Amino acid sequence: MFESAQLGHKVSKAQYKKEVPALREALLAAQVQLFTDQKRPVLLLISGEDGAGKRETTNVLYEWMDPRYLSTLAFEAPSSEELERPAMWRYWRSLPPKGRIGIFAGSWYSDPIRMRITGALSGRELDARAAQINRFEAMLVNEGALVLKFWIHLSKDAQRQRFKELESDPRTAWRVTPGSWERLKTYDKLQEVSSHLLRMTHTAAAPWVVVEGVDECYRSLTVGRVLRAALTQKLADATPAAPGLEPLARLDMDGRNVLSALDLDLTLGEREYKNELGRLQGRLAELARDPRFKTRSLVLAFEGADAAGKGGAIRRIAAALDARQFQVIPVAAPTEEERAQPYLWRFWRHVPRHNHLAIFDRTWYGRVLVERVEGFCAPAEWQRAYGEINDFEHELVEAGAIVVKFWLQISQEEQLRRFKEREQIAFKRFKITDEDWRNREKWNTYQAAVCDMVERTSSGEVPWTLVEANDKQFARIKILRTLCERLEAALQPASVTRDAGEKAAKTSKAARREVKAGRAGKTPKGRSSKA
Amino acid sequence: MFESAQLGHKVSKAQYKKEVPALREALLAAQVQLFTDQKRPVLLLISGEDGAGKRETTNVLYEWMDPRYLSTLAFEAPSSEELERPAMWRYWRSLPPKGRIGIFAGSWYSDPIRMRITGALSGRELDARAAQINRFEAMLVNEGALVLKFWIHLSKDAQRQRFKELESDPRTAWRVTPGSWERLKTYDKLQEVSSHLLRMTHTAAAPWVVVEGVDECYRSLTVGRVLRAALTQKLADATPAAPGLEPLARLDMDGRNVLSALDLDLTLGEREYKNELGRLQGRLAELARDPRFKTRSLVLAFEGADAAGKGGAIRRIAAALDARQFQVIPVAAPTEEERAQPYLWRFWRHVPRHNHLAIFDRTWYGRVLVERVEGFCAPAEWQRAYGEINDFEHELVEAGAIVVKFWLQISQEEQLRRFKEREQIAFKRFKITDEDWRNREKWNTYQAAVCDMVERTSSGEVPWTLVEANDKQFARIKILRTLCERLEAALQPASVTRDAGEKAAKTSKAARREVKAGRAGKTPKGRSSKA
Repeated sequence: MFESAQLGHKVSKAQYKKEVPALREALLAAQVQLFTDQKRPVLLLISGEDGAGKRETTNVLYEWMDPRYLSTLAFEAPSSEELERPAMWRYWRSLPPKGRIGIFAGSWYSDPIRMRITGALSGRELDARAAQINRFEAMLVNEGALVLKFWIHLSKDAQRQRFKELESDPRTAWRVTPGSWERLKTYDKLQEVSSHLLRMTHTAAAPWVVVEGVDECYRSLTVGRVLRAALTQKLADATPAAPGLEPLARLDMDGRNVLSALDLDLTLGEREYKNELGRLQGRLAELARDPRFKTRSLVLAFEGADAAGKGGAIRRIAAALDARQFQVIPVAAPTEEERAQPYLWRFWRHVPRHNHLAIFDRTWYGRVLVERVEGFCAPAEWQRAYGEINDFEHELVEAGAIVVKFWLQISQEEQLRRFKEREQIAFKRFKITDEDWRNREKWNTYQAAVCDMVERTSSGEVPWTLVEANDKQFARIKILRTLCERLEAALQPASVTRDAGEKAAKTSKAARREVKAGRAGKTPKGRSSKA
Repeated sequence: MFESAQLGHKVSKAQYKKEVPALREALLAAQVQLFTDQKRPVLLLISGEDGAGKRETTNVLYEWMDPRYLSTLAFEAPSSEELERPAMWRYWRSLPPKGRIGIFAGSWYSDPIRMRITGALSGRELDARAAQINRFEAMLVNEGALVLKFWIHLSKDAQRQRFKELESDPRTAWRVTPGSWERLKTYDKLQEVSSHLLRMTHTAAAPWVVVEGVDECYRSLTVGRVLRAALTQKLADATPAAPGLEPLARLDMDGRNVLSALDLDLTLGEREYKNELGRLQGRLAELARDPRFKTRSLVLAFEGADAAGKGGAIRRIAAALDARQFQVIPVAAPTEEERAQPYLWRFWRHVPRHNHLAIFDRTWYGRVLVERVEGFCAPAEWQRAYGEINDFEHELVEAGAIVVKFWLQISQEEQLRRFKEREQIAFKRFKITDEDWRNREKWNTYQAAVCDMVERTSSGEVPWTLVEANDKQFARIKILRTLCERLEAALQPASVTRDAGEKAAKTSKAARREVKAGRAGKTPKGRSSKA
């Protein structure tokens, strides 16, 4: 990986001086166009060995471009707010919006490299991280970003030489610390780990550029030229998103699918409802106060047709909880700041802290439901979204979050009845709009999208629970019970520690039961309380 | 304050049941209108003694209203990110946007009360806090917010009784902790402090409502009724902002003002410029690395006419700094999320952490410059903005931030020359728009607004430095030197600790020299290097 960056590359001062004005003008022009278009963000990762010139490279970019539209993102020790979220949260919250250039001094590569060197990660785990990183960067690029990764390289001798130089100048001596010399000792190990990781994460979409760091003019000019070429090419690139395949024909020619298999006639009597409601709310209240929840969090996802009863179900959950412990996030059209980011960004920003719950009323699944059906995004976009969503939820689970997802299914007739009812009640009238009536017309298309969604995003770790929701009482109890069971299973002693949430969810009986019940909808009528 | 909340108020269950449906419908309708209008946020503070029913009151509001448009803001121990900012930062970042209701469980009252009880605040300091709070709340209300503050009250006997009740029920026993009984011992002190603070902060704009907490039906119904009345009244209130006075005629009938007194002919030769630039950048680099800066932060504000040279000055500062340590914030039109908040919110969100610098290219002073001159806000709005801005900067300084403000003054002729020059240079062309030409026509109005601004917002703690900027080299050196001097003065041993920044700035020679120089512009030509 580093061979061609140890050749003693050199550029003369004269050539440097001759080339810089045009380079600078081109970079500045590209920056202006980038800002004017407001179409894509640029992510520049500046990595490399200590003393190789990462800092100097960044400074040169500031000198050449307009510092007002540059941000440098540095990642020191994570704050308490960051430690209570998935490891990628701090990078998501720092992503530059469209139109801006973000320089990453430190990135999602820093931790895996450090951890592999100290032995905290096995080789296999490092490869898993590499795969995860590749998917993350592919997502960024698919969402329009230009991702350029520079590795400024120094040979071991050059590094030693560099430290000596820095030390001998009183203006730079402070930059050489005992840690620097320590770094020389682990030089070989760093080469081994980083060259492997770079190789595994060098993709056409987000390539690595290894730059020899010794000669300042060569280093700066190389970075500048590569950046200019990439910016120019990306800005000229008007290719629409790849068309993607037509949605595959569904296999349910016999009319049987996970939704049609649900028994929507399931009901629950008033008395049983009241008893169960009180009992389950009490149980939920206790679980949310469980000391073992203090290092976990809960993400609740509600999806369902209009008027399926999401709001009512959320209200029954909220009633059992301390208001200081949860937030309800109603998902509507994204704001301007959210539109300037990858579509998952607006959900990442609401990822809850430890001991907290985030209840999403509609979710990231909008991408494969309403956006797919209404054509708000290209086929290629929603088709890749399944994988992106699976990655997102996996990261949540890895960080100890408990992810519980409900689809509330009602019949077309029941929906019509509820729409009409809503129009009668003053304070419910606002809930029903023209759009709701229009959506009804696409019922079958939506149902097919839901079936695809369940097939592609349900797993033992993050199962979908399909809820027979024609009877509100039945639905609310099923939701509350499922939630309690999932929470209880996840808080079992074996799963208290961070990273163990995954195993807990996989092995817990409750989780397995749920998927089965949801998929097959076999709960016999009349025994609804065990649905 | 609490007398009428110790009378044993009671409401029968029957009356409660009778009244709730209509109350709920009205609240829900108001919530819908609030959300539809997107004109104002609602802040509900729920305070009071422990066990008085704060939690229950919040839960009832969730039961009555739509939980999707409610947020409960709880404030536990501040995170590291919050500790490195002014005390009010955590409240600013939690403000509900327009259209939403935020329930504050804990607020800006919690700390002052606690600190006064433990003796960490003197009575006089508490009063200063009260005055600060009043100004903060007045600002919120002026910006459109409905601010309602509930104090749920229990007498000492009632509190003791309540703890016993909670303890005797296994479902609530966990809520009574050793801390609760401790609370009983400080009951009298709490009464003394809180009744005083409530009295001092009860204003027409943001009133306190003290509610007896013993009887659940009475408590809930009272809060509900008050909220309904306030919401209904506020939503119907279409009164435009108070007209405000016509701007006072300026006193500079002789043509002398702080701007005209500046000697715009000051220049600096090329050789002196280069020497000074290198020297000052080196000094700045050292100051930014000073260990004493690790618990301080720096806020740099740049204002000036179009083409006055803000960008160039910022670039020279940036070049001296580690890119990981600063952010440049170019201030343009506010985003949608920013427009849903008080106008200062978008600056609060960029307040830097310890050891970091925020460089604002245009600032919160836009309110009293462009927004005033162009009529983007009402006269009453920009007239109150001086005070609001002074409060904002005072809070920054109190938290140890160093605030440095520059006005770059150029002549009309010089501006014209630069506009024409920009049109000639490809990569500078984007900097000049039709709007820039239009702004030129209002030159005198802008100059008057600047004079008012300097008069009303310059003080020893946060002085304006007026920069003679017809000569870019002179301006850049003056800016860099001022910055270094301010930073140096603030880092003097006496001012290392938090809260001491203020004193340092007040007493430092440098700061005093600046204001004088800026105001009088007396620096003799030719001795520019000491301007």
